[in-house]
Amino acid sequence: MNEEQRKSWILSRKRQQAIDVPGLAEDVALGNRLSLGKAITLIESTKPEDRTMAVQLLELLQHRRKEALRIGITGVPGVGKSTFIESFGMYLVALGKRVAVLAVDPSSTKNKGSILGDKTRMNVLAQQEAVFIRPSPSGGTLGGLARSTNESILLCEAAGYDIILVETVGVGQSETMVKQSVDFFLLLMLSGAGDELQGIKRGIMELADLLVITKADGDNERAANIAAASYKNAMHLFPPNDNDWIPTTLVCSALENKGMEAIWQKIESFKNSTTLNGWLAKNRIEQQLFWLERTVQTDLLERFMAFENFSEMQQNAERRIIEGGESAFLVAQKLVNDWMNTYFSTHGKD
Amino acid sequence: MNEEQRKSWILSRKRQQAIDVPGLAEDVALGNRLSLGKAITLIESTKPEDRTMAVQLLELLQHRRKEALRIGITGVPGVGKSTFIESFGMYLVALGKRVAVLAVDPSSTKNKGSILGDKTRMNVLAQQEAVFIRPSPSGGTLGGLARSTNESILLCEAAGYDIILVETVGVGQSETMVKQSVDFFLLLMLSGAGDELQGIKRGIMELADLLVITKADGDNERAANIAAASYKNAMHLFPPNDNDWIPTTLVCSALENKGMEAIWQKIESFKNSTTLNGWLAKNRIEQQLFWLERTVQTDLLERFMAFENFSEMQQNAERRIIEGGESAFLVAQKLVNDWMNTYFSTHGKD
Repeated sequence: MNEEQRKSWILSRKRQQAIDVPGLAEDVALGNRLSLGKAITLIESTKPEDRTMAVQLLELLQHRRKEALRIGITGVPGVGKSTFIESFGMYLVALGKRVAVLAVDPSSTKNKGSILGDKTRMNVLAQQEAVFIRPSPSGGTLGGLARSTNESILLCEAAGYDIILVETVGVGQSETMVKQSVDFFLLLMLSGAGDELQGIKRGIMELADLLVITKADGDNERAANIAAASYKNAMHLFPPNDNDWIPTTLVCSALENKGMEAIWQKIESFKNSTTLNGWLAKNRIEQQLFWLERTVQTDLLERFMAFENFSEMQQNAERRIIEGGESAFLVAQKLVNDWMNTYFSTHGKD
Repeated sequence: MNEEQRKSWILSRKRQQAIDVPGLAEDVALGNRLSLGKAITLIESTKPEDRTMAVQLLELLQHRRKEALRIGITGVPGVGKSTFIESFGMYLVALGKRVAVLAVDPSSTKNKGSILGDKTRMNVLAQQEAVFIRPSPSGGTLGGLARSTNESILLCEAAGYDIILVETVGVGQSETMVKQSVDFFLLLMLSGAGDELQGIKRGIMELADLLVITKADGDNERAANIAAASYKNAMHLFPPNDNDWIPTTLVCSALENKGMEAIWQKIESFKNSTTLNGWLAKNRIEQQLFWLERTVQTDLLERFMAFENFSEMQQNAERRIIEGGESAFLVAQKLVNDWMNTYFSTHGKD
């Protein structure tokens, strides 16, 4: 076997290994973390051959999962998200919970992984048997990331995790999207004199079910308590949620491991009350309907772009705009018409 | 003629009146403001029959326009946007310019028109022969609003307006979208002790080519100048633009009609330098390519939803999620597949 044959053999072996979808599904269901990682990579892929396998995988797993509690965690850079997640995650592990951590960070496309990309982050948590940590993928659009996160949650549930923490950066639009995949939204904030309401957007504060002031330790403890009080006031300015839950404020110190119990109690009480009043189940269904619409939208576009003459048609359309000064609206309409017609004539002959 | 016949006759007359597209195009090109208003209504409509007419209208007008200077104006509620636009607009009219004002406010979907909906706003400006003011449409998505704004600009250009002011609310995502339709972006801000950087998002500040501190009159003038200086510093924190333009800060008083000349000079100097270095033309082409992609995306979705069995298929898909607990991703894929197949079989028989 020469070098080239060897490479091609390795490649085809890799491909064969990759397409054992039933085996992969089985391993995910058994809670194998490596397999779960592979499965998520498959879900995140936009290659057509991977998409087919992703569909197969989800079909095999969608009825084998038990629903986990899904918690969104956000906060601006510097608020201490990883330290918090490590501390809170360890608290949950001590309670006997299996915890999955997923990151959504569209900015990592540019910065090559600003959250969870660094392997040294959360290294104590990462070593736990009961914990699965998944960094943010380094490519793709916000919509794509958020959608694959929604499916990754399903995979983590199939792998038997009890609690899924979804981490976002708190500066972009990710939060609004992630809100559509989680049951509870936790916003981390820093204390500071006079700037309590800076840095975070009003829109993100509105999403929060619980606001936690971090780094409430040492000299900072008093400031944190003052900040908590002023945030509590600020949150009264927002309209009430449709789940009858009144968002509140707590303080914590990941450094001194303080406040984790109170946070978990709040989340449990949220879970109990929204289970009782039916909101939790209703909300999950509404979220899935949101993703149905979203996925249809992106799927249509992907099929359109996968069209064989696509790049030629696109270049032609662009030329009409650049050289002909035509309206984008008109050219777009023509582009879609052409696609529909060609699609029909190609498939109509079968 | 009974009551029913009469109604149907009025309706059909209205329809007949509506479909004289060549006549409408002619009237728009002659600068008739009522016709321009009608034309924009047609562009904004999502009804299929209106879409056909909109295409026809744009085809008739797309090569008859002369390019106007397009200026985006934004600022949080309370900053004095309407007062500023009235004052700035009157300044432009005095220079002999014809000015069109378009509003983009996605929040008006809920609040039934929070900007430009109030007819008493800008009443001096609105009375000018050389001025066209268009309130934000009261329905539709942000994407839809922004796209129709892009086409409305084209119509205003066909009607011979020299300067088009596009007003947004400064709190949502509208600015990023509107940025794709304008040449120059003006951000209005208030002065205030200590809160100079509050209320507005970093992302919006990054879009600004010029920052104007409003209400620099009376006791407030000193504070406005201080604010201008601190904003100037803050803007140094942002990466430089690709057009070699260095964003700057000015103060104005719409009340005392101060600062309008300096603002207009800045905008003219921007226009001259970006015309010289070729950025202006290049940017407009890039913007149109952005809208090409956007329009394709929404167009695909609209066709999908216009499918005759759509509501039945959608209900079925929703049932699979709600009752069957299936994955949104899988159901969406099936929905699109079904649509593609049915579309093919329906059209394949012709």
